[in-house]
Amino acid sequence: MAHKYVYLFKEGNAGMKNLLGGKGANLAEMSALGLPVPPGFIVTTEACNAYYANNQTISDEIIRQIDEGLAQVESAIGKKFGDMDNPLLVSVRSGSRASMPGMMDTILNLGLTDVAVKGLAKLSGNPRFAYDSYRRFIQMFSDVVMDIPKPKFEKIIDEVKEKAGVTLDIDLTAADMENLVAKFKAFYLKEKGEPFPQDPKVQLIEAVKAVFRSWDNPRAIYYRRLNDIPGDWGTAVNIQSMVFGNMGDTSGTGVAFTRDPSTGADVLYGEYLINAQGEDVVAGIRTPQLIATLKDVMPDVFRQFTEIADKLEKHYRDMQDMEYTIERGQLYMLQTRNGKRTAAAALKIAVDMVNEGMLTKEEALLKVDPKSLDAVLHPQFETKALKAATPIARGLAASPGAACGQVYFDTAEAVAAAKRGLKIVLVRNETSPEDIEAMNHAQGILTARGGMTSHAAVVARGMGTCCVAGCADLKEVDEEKGMAILGGRTLREGDYLSLDGTTGNVYEGQIPTVEATISGDFATLMSWADEFRTLKIRTNADTPHDAAVALKFGAEGIGLTRTEHMFFAPDRINVVREMILSETTEQRVRALDRLLPMQKADFKGIYEEMKELPVTIRFLDPPLHEFMPTPKMVDEINAIAKELGITPEKLMGKIEALHEVNPMMGHRGCRLSISFPEIAQMQTRAVIEAAIEVSKALKINIHPEIMIPIVAVKQELEYVRKIVTETADVVIAEAGFPLKYSVGVMIEIPRAALKADEIASQADFFSFGTNDLSQLTYGYSRDDAGKFLEDFYAKKILEFDPFARIDADGVGLLVEMAVKLGRHEKPNLKIGICGEHGGDPYSVNFFHKAGLNYVSCSPFRVPIARLAAAQAAIQASEENKHHHG
Amino acid sequence: MAHKYVYLFKEGNAGMKNLLGGKGANLAEMSALGLPVPPGFIVTTEACNAYYANNQTISDEIIRQIDEGLAQVESAIGKKFGDMDNPLLVSVRSGSRASMPGMMDTILNLGLTDVAVKGLAKLSGNPRFAYDSYRRFIQMFSDVVMDIPKPKFEKIIDEVKEKAGVTLDIDLTAADMENLVAKFKAFYLKEKGEPFPQDPKVQLIEAVKAVFRSWDNPRAIYYRRLNDIPGDWGTAVNIQSMVFGNMGDTSGTGVAFTRDPSTGADVLYGEYLINAQGEDVVAGIRTPQLIATLKDVMPDVFRQFTEIADKLEKHYRDMQDMEYTIERGQLYMLQTRNGKRTAAAALKIAVDMVNEGMLTKEEALLKVDPKSLDAVLHPQFETKALKAATPIARGLAASPGAACGQVYFDTAEAVAAAKRGLKIVLVRNETSPEDIEAMNHAQGILTARGGMTSHAAVVARGMGTCCVAGCADLKEVDEEKGMAILGGRTLREGDYLSLDGTTGNVYEGQIPTVEATISGDFATLMSWADEFRTLKIRTNADTPHDAAVALKFGAEGIGLTRTEHMFFAPDRINVVREMILSETTEQRVRALDRLLPMQKADFKGIYEEMKELPVTIRFLDPPLHEFMPTPKMVDEINAIAKELGITPEKLMGKIEALHEVNPMMGHRGCRLSISFPEIAQMQTRAVIEAAIEVSKALKINIHPEIMIPIVAVKQELEYVRKIVTETADVVIAEAGFPLKYSVGVMIEIPRAALKADEIASQADFFSFGTNDLSQLTYGYSRDDAGKFLEDFYAKKILEFDPFARIDADGVGLLVEMAVKLGRHEKPNLKIGICGEHGGDPYSVNFFHKAGLNYVSCSPFRVPIARLAAAQAAIQASEENKHHHG
Repeated sequence: MAHKYVYLFKEGNAGMKNLLGGKGANLAEMSALGLPVPPGFIVTTEACNAYYANNQTISDEIIRQIDEGLAQVESAIGKKFGDMDNPLLVSVRSGSRASMPGMMDTILNLGLTDVAVKGLAKLSGNPRFAYDSYRRFIQMFSDVVMDIPKPKFEKIIDEVKEKAGVTLDIDLTAADMENLVAKFKAFYLKEKGEPFPQDPKVQLIEAVKAVFRSWDNPRAIYYRRLNDIPGDWGTAVNIQSMVFGNMGDTSGTGVAFTRDPSTGADVLYGEYLINAQGEDVVAGIRTPQLIATLKDVMPDVFRQFTEIADKLEKHYRDMQDMEYTIERGQLYMLQTRNGKRTAAAALKIAVDMVNEGMLTKEEALLKVDPKSLDAVLHPQFETKALKAATPIARGLAASPGAACGQVYFDTAEAVAAAKRGLKIVLVRNETSPEDIEAMNHAQGILTARGGMTSHAAVVARGMGTCCVAGCADLKEVDEEKGMAILGGRTLREGDYLSLDGTTGNVYEGQIPTVEATISGDFATLMSWADEFRTLKIRTNADTPHDAAVALKFGAEGIGLTRTEHMFFAPDRINVVREMILSETTEQRVRALDRLLPMQKADFKGIYEEMKELPVTIRFLDPPLHEFMPTPKMVDEINAIAKELGITPEKLMGKIEALHEVNPMMGHRGCRLSISFPEIAQMQTRAVIEAAIEVSKALKINIHPEIMIPIVAVKQELEYVRKIVTETADVVIAEAGFPLKYSVGVMIEIPRAALKADEIASQADFFSFGTNDLSQLTYGYSRDDAGKFLEDFYAKKILEFDPFARIDADGVGLLVEMAVKLGRHEKPNLKIGICGEHGGDPYSVNFFHKAGLNYVSCSPFRVPIARLAAAQAAIQASEENKHHHG
Repeated sequence: MAHKYVYLFKEGNAGMKNLLGGKGANLAEMSALGLPVPPGFIVTTEACNAYYANNQTISDEIIRQIDEGLAQVESAIGKKFGDMDNPLLVSVRSGSRASMPGMMDTILNLGLTDVAVKGLAKLSGNPRFAYDSYRRFIQMFSDVVMDIPKPKFEKIIDEVKEKAGVTLDIDLTAADMENLVAKFKAFYLKEKGEPFPQDPKVQLIEAVKAVFRSWDNPRAIYYRRLNDIPGDWGTAVNIQSMVFGNMGDTSGTGVAFTRDPSTGADVLYGEYLINAQGEDVVAGIRTPQLIATLKDVMPDVFRQFTEIADKLEKHYRDMQDMEYTIERGQLYMLQTRNGKRTAAAALKIAVDMVNEGMLTKEEALLKVDPKSLDAVLHPQFETKALKAATPIARGLAASPGAACGQVYFDTAEAVAAAKRGLKIVLVRNETSPEDIEAMNHAQGILTARGGMTSHAAVVARGMGTCCVAGCADLKEVDEEKGMAILGGRTLREGDYLSLDGTTGNVYEGQIPTVEATISGDFATLMSWADEFRTLKIRTNADTPHDAAVALKFGAEGIGLTRTEHMFFAPDRINVVREMILSETTEQRVRALDRLLPMQKADFKGIYEEMKELPVTIRFLDPPLHEFMPTPKMVDEINAIAKELGITPEKLMGKIEALHEVNPMMGHRGCRLSISFPEIAQMQTRAVIEAAIEVSKALKINIHPEIMIPIVAVKQELEYVRKIVTETADVVIAEAGFPLKYSVGVMIEIPRAALKADEIASQADFFSFGTNDLSQLTYGYSRDDAGKFLEDFYAKKILEFDPFARIDADGVGLLVEMAVKLGRHEKPNLKIGICGEHGGDPYSVNFFHKAGLNYVSCSPFRVPIARLAAAQAAIQASEENKHHHG
């Protein structure tokens, strides 16, 4: 028997997401639950992969199975494809394993031809509706399948409207619509050199191919990378008999959530439009009505819908996001899926569902996307400053949080500005999938049109980005001129704007923000996470302030204090330069003696915050030229030379001598301590003296951890360790205080990972520096890879940024080797990670599996890491049960 | 029983080199053979390692065993340490497992004290001799053990001579010598704050410690690195009762080789000095007499010596280098070892000994150091130019080859000049171990004093560097002024000089050189090497000329053609720049179209040389900025901009855009082909069209191998491979010629090695690029590591340069993994290496063991690699026999 590439809805269920895609599997499941779902069938994700494997062609076998599925649908509802009396029309939608809203292209009304349109007119008794549907289909098919841009058709509509002397589409007559169809077809013929296809089966196969192609369009690739979705999943295609929400005032269409996706409140939440098709709601062109009002308009439909919503939420044990259409008073369900929600809503829903007995704590923890927490960790406006400010406009509170930045209208310019380091607010009439990169870079998004389920709102909530949508006070948005009118004022590119995504208020200028705190549902969920996780969560913190923030967010120690960051303070940098410019050890020691009390004060401040929690201090890491001006900064060189009492020529000579071809692999890290042991001596003295003084003052026992960076061979570590212990032991003896300390190593050079057993013999602990380890393992310089990584994503060479998410296959192999070798040498070796991967949920899961003791991340990512660590532990324990159960 | 740290000569044998050092083991062996060896004992290399492990102290147990050994020697020869009538004097010499001539410090006459010197005077009947010995000992002990520089004593001697009104040491009387001893002791007291030690046992232990210390002096570390000697071997200490060559005209001392170490001729070869100590011969201060003349001076001694020499060569089955002393007509053997020799001599001796039946071919192959072949591969002067030149001076032909370069007198300046890329000739009165780094950088060495066994001559032969020694025409060498007189002319720093190390002639100016050829003994040995080796030897060649040279040296193919090297030619570089500056694909293709015929011509030239031998062509590798001037080169930028018809500002902007922070890890290699597929298309077309045209013209079947560099992930290779095969298949179809070609990959990024199974799925062959693989695995930038590697050697962090010799432990692990993974995917995968390690014997041995199919090296290293590959195969087969025998 041939491999099965096509499933009728009644042949599937919710467990078949991988094969049928999320949308298809849920349509099948709803059918099985006896809900009113228009019949249809699904072309599987395997067919999509076969399409790509087969040089982007569909096999005859798949076409045969599609024909067969179509025949079944025809017989189920008694309509026929292309029939002049009772034509079957279908929608064609993409649907991958993971929800990718707005990423894939959809085609409605497929099946309309010159013949079938007559059948539809007869059947509906509404020729205007029939020809309107046909012209919409031609437009959509041309755009999605044949790459003829929509606006070209819009221009034809405008011409027809002008001729007819009307301004609104609604005022066009049936004859106008028929005329429009003729003009569209003529235009199509002109553009493509062949007539618009009149065989509905040809339309269908072309549409299926277009959906397959859309899996690899740049938006989809970008979205997948952002969401860790592998490129080899492929998309399924859902082909479903059409129902019409635009058949008059007893028809309509809408979307709804079983709970409020913004706050998590347990109320039915959603919108609908009377006499409209689904695309009208999502596109945000007409502003829809709240679902509660449906109770008055169509009480029976409303009651039926609330029952279905309740049933679906209980069935899926999660908040549902549903699409529905009412055709002449008859309700049809077109989609259900677990709804996207704000982080605050996710927290509330998860906690509520545990309290309602619907979920266990483990299940609730797995429901919350750790990355989404970023949103509740974002700053809010300072209460006082906010009270003093008067909003100049107001829109829908589409995605919570506070944002402040400079206005950009053009997406490309917005992206460029953000890459230059500016904080930007994206201001648009409405957003579309093409804008996704700009949205991802924006602090906040403001749109003139669209509701709570418009593209801008849905995507912004998913990203945790503040969004104010449907702001009626925003007018005349002109991308090209870089201008708009906001609350009557002229708004120009570069102006500052502050958005409150929680209230919908928009303010002129910059309003100061305050940081978020953990309380309420958030605190509850975090406490559950701590019950399950086994990984410790530390933070990367260079200052007492960072340390305090991280403690508030639940950090259990510091995994990385970068000592060089302290060297850049204005009162220190010239002392550091003096140290670097020293020509003898004596000169260098004199400069270091001046740095010692400063560095010691830094460490004391951190210890005072962290008390007895572990603090890992990394010794000087960057190449020395980073502390110097570049050769081009002539004024600064003159000033520094003057202050240091040397000639500018001499300073310039030294700067040139410090130049390196590849500084990432140059004279840095432990290599500096080997050339200049006095640097390591000073840093050791600062670490140890500070620990002793704070231990004595607070009557506690601090146990500092000294970490040596950029080690490639055991002898490097051995040499520096000797300097450290000799110095520390003298300081401890001088003070007469029995301080304990550890000396560990960063594993960030491939060779250190390969020889981790030898390295472990000299190390009290390991900490992976996966930033540098990834650079060297890939041979990608982070500073330069931007030049080719975009090409790589576009050409599917890479599916994710290995600096954002650990490369488990390659770099991860080195991590696993190093863990194994290190523990072989020292079974109880403490092992952590302090690169940026420490706050990435996918990576945290990997590190859990690799057997690490802790991850360390930036303070704001500590809650994300706590939740990710809990999920990793729960998943591992479930997998364990599976294996042994 | 305590661990044994001291062995009497009679307790050891030649097989105990690891424990007793080479010198000690051979002294023991000679004792066992019944040869006249003064009694003594050896402190083992284990004692040296214990000394370092024990924080540079000697344990009481070792001291006890030394005392015991001493007592045995005393009783054997009936003398006593420090005795006033019959004092025992000893020499203390270092001796490690490998011979390290001149590296270690030696002390003679140890045991002399104010008391013992009287005994020696009495015993020898020669008070002048006794006090001369005592003052020499004080001077040597102070220098070697106590770090008081020799010249300070020389100054005292000069004062005494002046007072006595004499100019030569020999004219000083016994009383003068006694006076000198008193002055030396007073000076010692002043310098060290304590009197010169009068307990011989204290002298001995201090001397042993000094030998141990000398193992780690900078000269020794440098020598070890140059010769692949591990730092943990340690040195033994040889303590031997003294015999005196300076007891009058029936005494003498000398060195000799059983064959001529310069030519390999089977004649006894050597020198001696009457009435002298060993140091006088080696130091080259007095010019010694040829050993043949000893036949007339002391016929009995000469006969006895030739018999011993013969016996030793047969016993060791190798040419011996011997030291001997004649004390009052009695011959003593002080040392024998396998003699260092020129490469030409090594070849002749190896071939002769096989013909004499003394060695098998395998043994002969193992006797020749592959690195030494460098010397016979060095250029010689052009015969015609040489005939036209008249020597301005002549010296001893101490180390063969021709050298031409600029004169430097000061070693530090010589090293600096060589590092700036200048070819230098080192000119000195005589060399000493401190000069070794400068000697290593020099093209040639010219000395005013010293014979064929002087320091300069021995070391230069070891290095394969041309040397003319003992040049009496060289006078008034003044390092500080940078001047000398040579053949009556004034010679200044920077002047050009040409040296012929084969004749001893010295020429003014630059004489052109020609390359060496393989013939005679060299050809014979190479043919034997080819019988045994299993590794194929290819060459790295970018031009037909390189290819021709390599073929002459026995290359079996090209393992690396760097296509970018061809881009730097003056007639091409601006076309390349035009390509780089292109703003559209069309512009780029236009420039590439102009490069195509040039690149094709290059390949045709190479194919015409190589015929059907394999040729591997690597696609564009370096980052594009390498083809542009640096931003500082304003004149060049203006000129190029003018030629390309753009503004200098625009060119400058592009140069700045091409700037990378870490170009080694930037936009290069396959990453360029992914961003600009048209580059790979052009290169493919050039490779394939050239191969087809030459195949047709010569009626052969060329099978080009295209190699893709800088691959980290499978998809990179997959993408470029697709471009290559699509282009190649079109070209092949166009030509209608059934050309076969392969597409392989460089394994030079750690991730590629870790994922070699995936990579192999897309590759027809692997070629390790161990230069870049070492850079990334260590995180050492080759361009920058110079800043810290010297510190690393000095501090024993590294013992060898990982870019000169493969790091078998770390980088080698990746190589082994990649071989295993690659062959797991494709059992017959062809694997080679084309980094600089391909011509390093140690590395070739490693690659043989790792199971590679070939190594590729520069043309001049092909014979070295052939021999090294044969040695690797022979050694592996011997180890195999051991395991299974």
